Amino acid sequence: MSTYHPLTEREAIEISLTLKELFPEGAELTSREIGDGNLNLVFHISDPASGRSIIMKQALPYAKVVGESWPLTLDRARIESEALILEGELAPGLVPQVYHYDAELALTVMEDLSNHVIMRQGLMQNNRYPLFAEHISTFLAQTLFFTSDLGMNQQEKKLRARNFTNPELCKITEDLIFDDPYRDADTNSFDEAIRDEAAALWNDGALHLEVALLREKFLTHAQALLHGDLHTGSIFITPQSTKIIDPEFAYYGPMGFDIGAVIANLLLNYTSRDHWNSDAASAHDYRTYLLDSIRELWTKFELKFRTLWTEHGSDRIAKSAPGYIDLYLQRLLQDTIGFAGCKIVRRVVGLAHVADIDKISDSSQREHTQRLALSIGKSLIKLNRRAKSIDELISTVQTASAVKV
Amino acid sequence: MSTYHPLTEREAIEISLTLKELFPEGAELTSREIGDGNLNLVFHISDPASGRSIIMKQALPYAKVVGESWPLTLDRARIESEALILEGELAPGLVPQVYHYDAELALTVMEDLSNHVIMRQGLMQNNRYPLFAEHISTFLAQTLFFTSDLGMNQQEKKLRARNFTNPELCKITEDLIFDDPYRDADTNSFDEAIRDEAAALWNDGALHLEVALLREKFLTHAQALLHGDLHTGSIFITPQSTKIIDPEFAYYGPMGFDIGAVIANLLLNYTSRDHWNSDAASAHDYRTYLLDSIRELWTKFELKFRTLWTEHGSDRIAKSAPGYIDLYLQRLLQDTIGFAGCKIVRRVVGLAHVADIDKISDSSQREHTQRLALSIGKSLIKLNRRAKSIDELISTVQTASAVKV
Repeated sequence: MSTYHPLTEREAIEISLTLKELFPEGAELTSREIGDGNLNLVFHISDPASGRSIIMKQALPYAKVVGESWPLTLDRARIESEALILEGELAPGLVPQVYHYDAELALTVMEDLSNHVIMRQGLMQNNRYPLFAEHISTFLAQTLFFTSDLGMNQQEKKLRARNFTNPELCKITEDLIFDDPYRDADTNSFDEAIRDEAAALWNDGALHLEVALLREKFLTHAQALLHGDLHTGSIFITPQSTKIIDPEFAYYGPMGFDIGAVIANLLLNYTSRDHWNSDAASAHDYRTYLLDSIRELWTKFELKFRTLWTEHGSDRIAKSAPGYIDLYLQRLLQDTIGFAGCKIVRRVVGLAHVADIDKISDSSQREHTQRLALSIGKSLIKLNRRAKSIDELISTVQTASAVKV
Repeated sequence: MSTYHPLTEREAIEISLTLKELFPEGAELTSREIGDGNLNLVFHISDPASGRSIIMKQALPYAKVVGESWPLTLDRARIESEALILEGELAPGLVPQVYHYDAELALTVMEDLSNHVIMRQGLMQNNRYPLFAEHISTFLAQTLFFTSDLGMNQQEKKLRARNFTNPELCKITEDLIFDDPYRDADTNSFDEAIRDEAAALWNDGALHLEVALLREKFLTHAQALLHGDLHTGSIFITPQSTKIIDPEFAYYGPMGFDIGAVIANLLLNYTSRDHWNSDAASAHDYRTYLLDSIRELWTKFELKFRTLWTEHGSDRIAKSAPGYIDLYLQRLLQDTIGFAGCKIVRRVVGLAHVADIDKISDSSQREHTQRLALSIGKSLIKLNRRAKSIDELISTVQTASAVKV
């Protein structure tokens, strides 16, 4: 059983029964493969008698996207498993518990979160999550600070960065986020109605300069261990609970990339509210809720990060140099805004889109939404190096939204 | 013979005889241990009959500095050997040729450069090296560009960075350059006559902010494979030839750290000219020669780097984004100036000094020189983020020199 091969549901059950204390002796388990089959197998394994259940996730040795298939390292299962365990230590309760990892099978057995919903779906269903900003700001502050040179032993950090070397998954990001949307690439995918917008992206030199600078940060700034793919599809949520999943893109990179990913995906949903809400007033309310969440997210993140810096800073001169913490957080906000912009743009013209927008059935409304998203994305990218406060992000979004596009 | 132990001269000879084609069959070799014994054994092994000779360098499992001894990884021999081989491919003729590497014995066998002198000694002997700027700018441009995301496959770069993870040697730099000189640390070492200068360093908040920012770059910016210790004691030279040695500190860091190291050590020599030259006029001439060399070094480096960018750039958007190359080089110059400043300061108040200054026998002249060096170092650190051209570095040095200190 230990040589790699994609598991059958029967094998998934057999493995589950060998794992101690997950299920009662002699339990009669059922298995259901619930993955989308593009990157991983995901088995939901449950014992109807005891009501216990687990998730078993197995990496596939290839990625399938829109019919294309290319080989992809199984080592990402190790990275995901190790990142989940580390995140669980740093941000208890905010990631699924890992019960077991099998390197040969590229297999992680973890907590079943079926009582949660994928946040992207929850937002599309008009749910609100009053604790989300509190939870995600804790997750971000704890994982970013304590894996950085600011909050851990700096020699151990270098060994950890070595352990999370993740070239294949990074390349996906480098291509799909920081290159392809800004040229007429085969991988791009966009509605013909906005071809003018796509062409404008390909010819905007000032934008390319900012993207090149942000790309450089993604390539070279080993600031902290990132989740690396922190969109609302990687978040399981209820009004009371937030669980971050799927850190297979984890690597040492710029902190703002993770924070920007969350904000970008809230903003992508923001652009789509006229579709999901039943009337203009409730759409307006929901947009306000989203912008308030973004402001709260950053504000709480900054507060928590500053507290950690003061109370747990491991770098003597970083801790004591006057003004350094303020400059650090200002640059982090700038990175966050820039990366958020890049993450928005790629979801409209790049390979991978978001359901928030793609599920809008009315083509005119969808086009309007896509143009608004691109306008916000480009504005944030161009704002990034000048930004001094989160209010500038909010007002940039509001200004873009006020213009009839 | 393959289990690690420090070699005797006899063993060094025996190993030499097993290496093919280095010496004629049955050669009668002589060996001389010429290392300082602090970090490595260095055997000079020669065959008087044929006139052939080699250097055999073996890492010791500890470092000895001013009586203290602490354990140090033998893996640095692998890093040094692999860095030398890579540098030799990228900058042919500018590093010693590596004939053999033995991992178990932490041993590198390489070209004998006894016909060269250590550049620091050469400068102290008033020699001039008219080809140095040309050579070192080639070395820097070639090694930094082609190991960065700008000039190589970006996935291979990540694997290479992993291979050059070098926490123990980096820690020496992080402590001795980016921390200790800015606090009353036990490791500091300075003449009592300049205690006021040392205390001023410990209390200069604006300086600490700049050092914290430069330290952050050293810790997190994995831009290119650095030599990591590129002072004039790591350069063998003649008027015709330049050979860079001892890259045991090699790791992926900010490019400006290597360029700044060279400039700092030329400037340290610059401050000491009144001692080494026989009269004021020749000291003035020599200072001019050194400043001209620094300007030429940067100017040629920039030209070569720009040519590589245009002709061999591997990053599409970096290559095409308007203005990116200019911004890149401006930031690189700023880093260079900041790191040069840090490297000067640490050589006056930190643990490891330079002979250029320490060998000045007249205590008043030595004190004057040390104060000048600190003035230049601090000024460069404070200039770094504002600098736009190499002329600003030159004029900062001249201004500091003009003030009677």
